[in-house]
Amino acid sequence: MTSATQNSRYTSEKVSTFSGLKCKECGAEYEAKAMHVCEFCFGPLEVAYDYEAIAAKVTRESIQAGPNSIWRYRDFLPVETDNYIDVGTGMTPLIKASRLARRLGLKNLYIKNDAVNMPTLSFKDRVVSVALSRARELGFSTVACASTGNLANSTAAIAAHAGLDCCVFIPSDLEAGKVLGTVIYAPKVFAVHGNYDQVNRLCSEVANTHGWGFVNINLRPYYSEGSKTLGYEVIEQLGWQLPDHIVAPLASGSLFTKIYKGFQEFVKVGLVEGKDVRFSGAQAEGCSPIASAFRDGRDFVTPVKPKTIAKSIAIGNPADGIYAIDIARKTNGNIESVTDAEIIEGMKLLAETEGIFTETAGGTTIAVLKKLVEAGKIDPDETTVAYITGNGLKTQEAIQGYVGEPLQIEPKLNSFERALERSHTLERLEWQPVSV
Amino acid sequence: MTSATQNSRYTSEKVSTFSGLKCKECGAEYEAKAMHVCEFCFGPLEVAYDYEAIAAKVTRESIQAGPNSIWRYRDFLPVETDNYIDVGTGMTPLIKASRLARRLGLKNLYIKNDAVNMPTLSFKDRVVSVALSRARELGFSTVACASTGNLANSTAAIAAHAGLDCCVFIPSDLEAGKVLGTVIYAPKVFAVHGNYDQVNRLCSEVANTHGWGFVNINLRPYYSEGSKTLGYEVIEQLGWQLPDHIVAPLASGSLFTKIYKGFQEFVKVGLVEGKDVRFSGAQAEGCSPIASAFRDGRDFVTPVKPKTIAKSIAIGNPADGIYAIDIARKTNGNIESVTDAEIIEGMKLLAETEGIFTETAGGTTIAVLKKLVEAGKIDPDETTVAYITGNGLKTQEAIQGYVGEPLQIEPKLNSFERALERSHTLERLEWQPVSV
Ligand SMILES: [Zn+2]
Ligand SMILES: [Zn+2]
Repeated sequence: MTSATQNSRYTSEKVSTFSGLKCKECGAEYEAKAMHVCEFCFGPLEVAYDYEAIAAKVTRESIQAGPNSIWRYRDFLPVETDNYIDVGTGMTPLIKASRLARRLGLKNLYIKNDAVNMPTLSFKDRVVSVALSRARELGFSTVACASTGNLANSTAAIAAHAGLDCCVFIPSDLEAGKVLGTVIYAPKVFAVHGNYDQVNRLCSEVANTHGWGFVNINLRPYYSEGSKTLGYEVIEQLGWQLPDHIVAPLASGSLFTKIYKGFQEFVKVGLVEGKDVRFSGAQAEGCSPIASAFRDGRDFVTPVKPKTIAKSIAIGNPADGIYAIDIARKTNGNIESVTDAEIIEGMKLLAETEGIFTETAGGTTIAVLKKLVEAGKIDPDETTVAYITGNGLKTQEAIQGYVGEPLQIEPKLNSFERALERSHTLERLEWQPVSV
Repeated sequence: MTSATQNSRYTSEKVSTFSGLKCKECGAEYEAKAMHVCEFCFGPLEVAYDYEAIAAKVTRESIQAGPNSIWRYRDFLPVETDNYIDVGTGMTPLIKASRLARRLGLKNLYIKNDAVNMPTLSFKDRVVSVALSRARELGFSTVACASTGNLANSTAAIAAHAGLDCCVFIPSDLEAGKVLGTVIYAPKVFAVHGNYDQVNRLCSEVANTHGWGFVNINLRPYYSEGSKTLGYEVIEQLGWQLPDHIVAPLASGSLFTKIYKGFQEFVKVGLVEGKDVRFSGAQAEGCSPIASAFRDGRDFVTPVKPKTIAKSIAIGNPADGIYAIDIARKTNGNIESVTDAEIIEGMKLLAETEGIFTETAGGTTIAVLKKLVEAGKIDPDETTVAYITGNGLKTQEAIQGYVGEPLQIEPKLNSFERALERSHTLERLEWQPVSV
């Protein structure tokens, strides 16, 4: 199954710009099937591309003439046909964040805003769009995932659009809003009485026995490639330039490594001029195994038990943690963690200065951005991009009680005037969390 | 203030393609100030444009080379400078809805999906982006609105990004989620103990005494122009063609009339070939004054007291109701209403077939679409566009209890297998609302 012969036979038949899967550790090559672990060394598999073919085919103009979605980068994504699933995912705004920049003391700050990604308001729509497109090419009629929220929403929604049968596995104590945002699309939803590790283990068994395509298990090599588009879009939206510094949240570490890969690929095929980009990562203190390893100068990540409000990035045993550390080190970046209180302040800061309501993961990124600036680890002149990956409407519980309350008035002008007077004194309380 | 001399003086100084305000009833002309009612006949004021100047300046190519937002249509919008507020609003996907079309028996159905509009997930971001851009040009430093939800979210968010002071007036019994989605941006929020009519009356007084820019009161002529972009985008996204039939929700009726105006303008300046487009409107039965007047063949709208789950479109005394009726009649369209139960089924139908989670207003549109098809009032061959205007995450209460529940399992393969078996029998219950 893994011989070079078979792989080249596959290559000769392909109508795409990718050539199969390759082990990230030992380099063994595989056909582009539904598999994610190297049979020799158990290393993670990654999609391999034919960059000469891409360079010969793709130009800035050909990309700009493409769809207004991640599929304008189709040649950098692991699909063989043009029958991909396009629900408008990607091409989210890159906002020049002048007011936040002033507040932090930066000069060139941008927010990449995936809080308004389509269709389900998180960067997961990118990876799921790619995974389900590839699943269809591989002949799967049932797709599935194990998730605690954003991934469940995204898989259920995009599968519904594509007419794929869908099964979602969630822990049984999931918040009502996240359950509703999944069941509305009518997948089969299994609430597992157990922790997330147990859910994952069950899903691996189901993938084997039922032959379903699990986006974050056997389809993971395709799935994770979707995150590269967060790199491509920033380059294109900066006018075909690389930024100087990026700050992104770290969960498994995959997003971080794929943005890095995206930047490298655009340089490799000549779409953008190469330069040094510093990569800094953000974790919540209550689940910061990668930040700890970075701080201690370790080459291994020690698993932790998560305890933080930033649930969507709380992965205690991050699969790509060491790769993320490697990138932060070699690009002269940093990996920092912040407390839950700082995360809430980060959410409020972004909302008040830029009108963006993000979830706790986004609050983590903004809080780490602030911390790095204050520590002199981001230069005010650097063109810096902070990645916001999800929407605050999905984690309302986290912020409720920490924002201001409306002023109660009667429907009379004088009642309003008295309240307005009162509000001027309240302004001095700005940035003090108010508990209700 | 309203003389032709003053108006032409204004015209000679303008650097824009609009020439002032004009009464929709008597045609009296006014400078482009913050006013919304004709001083002669109390008719509504509308923005007037210099279409010859637009036609000389704008081409399909110039539009396509513009920003990836409503501001690519800048010459059709009431701003004088290029200092408009662009937070990525607009250019939401036009989804080819093949699965929903099959279910309904249509051949060419599209969904214009403003459930993922930026930054706050409703079409209100379009009108607010325009209103606040114009407010800044007119010198306002404080902007305000009276709202029961989507408008409050949008005004607070975009004002925050622009650094404008913001005051929001809401009824005091508003749902917690909508309050949170407003206060997060740190505007001044006044919760008025009274009904929406009382809130509105108070706001008119405040506009007069404080000189603030209320987006849906004294800035209304600019504000409402933002909805035209829902017409422009559909034309551009259909490959510079008009559809045959559109279905849109009716609240005040403004959205409906502005889509119509947008279509007409693109024909007028030669961007698209003219043809007959049928306009059909959707209301909730619990607040259907426009549908009643249409059905009874009346030329006036009798106000009603709203009682429906579709709160965001429940306007009992719709200002533009007669204009909407006029358009539906002269284009050979229809105006229909549906029950709350049908609205919920509409939300579920759209989610299950297309992966789009809309609010109750969107459920109303889909339910009316279904009703019109079944009554033979939409031809299967017509290229039909249904406008989805808001996101389901904001009206979770409406649907909770009417969607399926997860299947509870233990983290064991045999527990999963038993539940999967059970789920096959459950499938037959599809389309039966499940009460929990
Ligand atoms: Zn290997
Ligand atoms: Zn008049």
